[in-house]
Amino acid sequence: MKTGTLVLLRHGESLYNRENLFTGWTDIDLSRKGIEEAESAGRLLAKHGIYPDICFTSWLKRAIHTAQIVLKEMEWEHIDAIRSWKLNERHYGAWQQHNKEAIEKEVGQKRFVAIRRGYDTPPPPLQEGDPRLPQNDPKYRGIDPALLPKSESLKDTRRRTLNYFVERIAPELVRGKSVLVSAHGNSLRALVMAIERLTPAEVVKLEIPTGEPILYYFDETAHLLRKEVLKTTPSDQS
Amino acid sequence: MKTGTLVLLRHGESLYNRENLFTGWTDIDLSRKGIEEAESAGRLLAKHGIYPDICFTSWLKRAIHTAQIVLKEMEWEHIDAIRSWKLNERHYGAWQQHNKEAIEKEVGQKRFVAIRRGYDTPPPPLQEGDPRLPQNDPKYRGIDPALLPKSESLKDTRRRTLNYFVERIAPELVRGKSVLVSAHGNSLRALVMAIERLTPAEVVKLEIPTGEPILYYFDETAHLLRKEVLKTTPSDQS
Repeated sequence: MKTGTLVLLRHGESLYNRENLFTGWTDIDLSRKGIEEAESAGRLLAKHGIYPDICFTSWLKRAIHTAQIVLKEMEWEHIDAIRSWKLNERHYGAWQQHNKEAIEKEVGQKRFVAIRRGYDTPPPPLQEGDPRLPQNDPKYRGIDPALLPKSESLKDTRRRTLNYFVERIAPELVRGKSVLVSAHGNSLRALVMAIERLTPAEVVKLEIPTGEPILYYFDETAHLLRKEVLKTTPSDQS
Repeated sequence: MKTGTLVLLRHGESLYNRENLFTGWTDIDLSRKGIEEAESAGRLLAKHGIYPDICFTSWLKRAIHTAQIVLKEMEWEHIDAIRSWKLNERHYGAWQQHNKEAIEKEVGQKRFVAIRRGYDTPPPPLQEGDPRLPQNDPKYRGIDPALLPKSESLKDTRRRTLNYFVERIAPELVRGKSVLVSAHGNSLRALVMAIERLTPAEVVKLEIPTGEPILYYFDETAHLLRKEVLKTTPSDQS
């Protein structure tokens, strides 16, 4: 029997995290700390002998670079890297690039929490003509704008992420492949929700760690065998 | 009519080039100068508006990193990166990691030139048990060792590279895609030989430039329309 291994990795700190801004689809790079988190994840995977056959990332550079740094650290850079906007972070609509504290003051704590931590409430959408609309970025020009979000609830993110998982990632797992997915807090939450069959109430409480790979082992019928989270111990520090 | 664009890019200086060693499949990284050559190629492509839809590289890090640096420089990192050992450099057999001058002294100038610059003479093969055999590298363990070279003439390199081109790269071109291929002096020579229908005598005289992308435009029947080489002008220097 062949066992497929899914490795979920959430990118570490970006330059926006440090400034407490909503990032979403804003294409911000990793901070120095984020780079170190990726290096540490690479060392953990190598230590546990988890060498992926293929790698999937979102279209955002903080996830792209995380995978590159991990694989470089492992001396395992020759695998195909497949990328999709469907693995992008939740789209934060009009809140993108705004300070979280300022937004909370503006909309009130109740509405802020409902949108930020709820399951099916999106932030206010980007308006026609907003330069932050995905279709204004040349990378997204080949995609039907009707498919691209103007803002998303976690439920919206889940729909696209799960579609992509079923179409492109699950087939690799049932063939017994080891698959690295480098993505974001909310796009990974959406995957974990499906894999672990969590309820909306459970998923909104779920925190995906950064820099610590989550492993799921599947049999050839896509039945989940077990889960494991790789954790850094003091001796793993370089 | 859709035009497919093939962009061939030879990686720049590696750490072995500087030491005058035969590299072949030895997995040596770019030098500082090699990194700058890749950045300059990225600026050239952006300046000419050549934004690839997909990228192919060999399994060797000097070609992998070259493509990553080019795409980072272009702010165009979201495209799929497909990698194959069939785009690797010519395998230099027992000469790998040896000094070129020392080899020439050892085998004599005539034999040296016949092997180094000839079309169908391979260097002496690696012997059973040699740690430099590809199958001793975990990356190549999934491949039938009978397919992996112990040394290659340019003709041998041409066979595998051309097979890969026809199977994986040409289909993208006839669909009108723009394709970046980041590879090596001899694997690219083999492609140019096929595309430009060069004779063995012509191909051995051909020098592929580093850091200067070669562009081929094809129609949807894979008929070659024209060729262009992008060259750095003094104003392109950053």
